[in-house]
Amino acid sequence: MSKQELPVLTGCCAPISEAALEPAQAVDGAAVFKALADPIRLRLMSIIASAGEEVCVCDVTPHFDVSGPTISHHLKVLREAGLVDCERRGTWVYYWPIPERLTWLSTLLSVRTPATA
Amino acid sequence: MSKQELPVLTGCCAPISEAALEPAQAVDGAAVFKALADPIRLRLMSIIASAGEEVCVCDVTPHFDVSGPTISHHLKVLREAGLVDCERRGTWVYYWPIPERLTWLSTLLSVRTPATA
Repeated sequence: MSKQELPVLTGCCAPISEAALEPAQAVDGAAVFKALADPIRLRLMSIIASAGEEVCVCDVTPHFDVSGPTISHHLKVLREAGLVDCERRGTWVYYWPIPERLTWLSTLLSVRTPATA
Repeated sequence: MSKQELPVLTGCCAPISEAALEPAQAVDGAAVFKALADPIRLRLMSIIASAGEEVCVCDVTPHFDVSGPTISHHLKVLREAGLVDCERRGTWVYYWPIPERLTWLSTLLSVRTPATA
């Protein structure tokens, strides 16, 4: 398993509170949010992002009541969304977060000025 | 159409880069990300969030190649996720963003320290 090529995100980092997205940007952004729109995947992402070191899939699976193959499927979705990357070492696969992608999403949703409400 | 009761988000504002989510938190967070996991809804959200004033649904619909009822459905999903609120005035419904909810998501995805990679 090698490093994946990250999906290109069209345009970068303008918060939606400052500029409306173009249709192509919305397609790209929605695809990444879809990867986080599942409770298991969001929790997996949080476990990997908060670990502070690379995480063995063998240490992740016991946190969930679903099968190993199901966890592997969800990890693949996160990887294809560019949110994590991984490397096989011997028997196990190790995962780490891609902070740039999290920062991209965080910036997209940030609110720098009070909105009308 | 009156102000909705916002979904309660369990726990608040700890970035996933600092702490793993509990299962219930992941369920709540994933539900909000699901509202943004559609290109039309994400673009709608960006149009409302960036407008700087309340947005009439009549001004939003022409930006899209889908029907008015489809736009209304997507706006309802954003409203139920606590991302926008709205009020009917005469013929039209006006929408505005809920910045606290955007900030909650932005904080959740923020990365304060370099992660292992």
